[in-house]
Amino acid sequence: MHSPEEHRELVESYIAELALTPELGGLADSMRYALEGGGKRIRPVLCLATGEAAGAEPEAILPAAAALELVHTFSLVHDDLPALDDDELRRGRPSTWAQYGEAIAVLAGDALLAEAFRLALSYPTTAVARELAQATLGMIGGQYVDITEDNPDLAALHRLKTGCLFSASIGLALWAAGVPEAEQPPWRAFGDELGLLFQIVDDILDGDGYVESHGLDGARRLADEAAERAQDRLTSIPADTSVLSEIVAGLAARTS
Amino acid sequence: MHSPEEHRELVESYIAELALTPELGGLADSMRYALEGGGKRIRPVLCLATGEAAGAEPEAILPAAAALELVHTFSLVHDDLPALDDDELRRGRPSTWAQYGEAIAVLAGDALLAEAFRLALSYPTTAVARELAQATLGMIGGQYVDITEDNPDLAALHRLKTGCLFSASIGLALWAAGVPEAEQPPWRAFGDELGLLFQIVDDILDGDGYVESHGLDGARRLADEAAERAQDRLTSIPADTSVLSEIVAGLAARTS
Repeated sequence: MHSPEEHRELVESYIAELALTPELGGLADSMRYALEGGGKRIRPVLCLATGEAAGAEPEAILPAAAALELVHTFSLVHDDLPALDDDELRRGRPSTWAQYGEAIAVLAGDALLAEAFRLALSYPTTAVARELAQATLGMIGGQYVDITEDNPDLAALHRLKTGCLFSASIGLALWAAGVPEAEQPPWRAFGDELGLLFQIVDDILDGDGYVESHGLDGARRLADEAAERAQDRLTSIPADTSVLSEIVAGLAARTS
Repeated sequence: MHSPEEHRELVESYIAELALTPELGGLADSMRYALEGGGKRIRPVLCLATGEAAGAEPEAILPAAAALELVHTFSLVHDDLPALDDDELRRGRPSTWAQYGEAIAVLAGDALLAEAFRLALSYPTTAVARELAQATLGMIGGQYVDITEDNPDLAALHRLKTGCLFSASIGLALWAAGVPEAEQPPWRAFGDELGLLFQIVDDILDGDGYVESHGLDGARRLADEAAERAQDRLTSIPADTSVLSEIVAGLAARTS
């Protein structure tokens, strides 16, 4: 079994060496810029750890894991645009539009999304890409709520904007590892709790969302409860889930 | 066999009744607005006619045909944005961003692309969606060349920007109809000529591109030659390609 840090290194290498479609030409520079922004790679690491716990080699899961990171990156590139969140900075560097211009950022996001599907379609089953499409559509629906509603239902918003891609990190790993659908529910129940945990901790670090609605202590308690439920879900999975347990603890305790 | 006009009506009904992912919520309005802009539906009609010539029922080809139209529409919605072509009008109506704002147009384009993959993934084989991904990436590469290069190689640009999705209109139909890969080359050779024909006629109608490089008479001659080659390719396909032949004639003679 690989540690979360080893999984992260596998993801970094895979993304750094990823062959993009040649027809994209110079657009590839902006896509690599967006991809190499030094994110935590939480989704692909979760995907690899799940796949390995389910009995697959990391190499077999890497295309699915990378596809998740490409979709996440696509969403950041488009969300940062002036017409949406208007963020000039992303992880301490100019955001993609600030670096390359709006037109190229629009196209780079589009191409990242299409490349994500290309990766998810490298499996013999359509199930990997189907779940990715569904999660992407949910995520876009969440972004739509975020920019159009003044007082959105916070839980519903986060379930879409963050939860969909988190759940898909588990789901894609299960399909890529060949876990039969009938054996997937306990894994997926774990993924749902983990997505919630991630979001609450995010809000605690940013001082918004659940902190605004439940106070800092309330949010911290919700996070602890979600972490506990996630750990509890793991015990019902008939596999070595020790690395996933480590990821839960890491997400609950993270400070950035 | 259905006529091109009957195929167009099938496409219109299918798109009008298309169930979009519920999580998209109110974003669906802008997507339908973009989809219902009254385009000629050339790509899906070509896809249906090819599928029927290859022996499939139109119903079996419609999801692939609609996926092509969604990708085409996604590209128009994003290309019209102020940061790209800055078009406030599209087919005599406000373009999607002019009607709904830039932020929603970005998201609507994203969601149209993801919905296109969801449709292409309704087939048991991954081949339909794989070819759609490849064509989409080529098309985006073409748009990148278009906005960044002052004197692009016209033929190469059009092969990407228009040709990719035209070729995919044939390719998706072949996969959806279950035509074995070994039997696909003559169909695909036809599709390549048709894509070129479409582009040259487009330039003749717009007075740019091939007209600028070859003069009006020269462009007309190139179009006639492409139409002749397309008809010639059809004769080498062992199927009733009479409707496809009608489509070639229609594309060569179109005035809008």
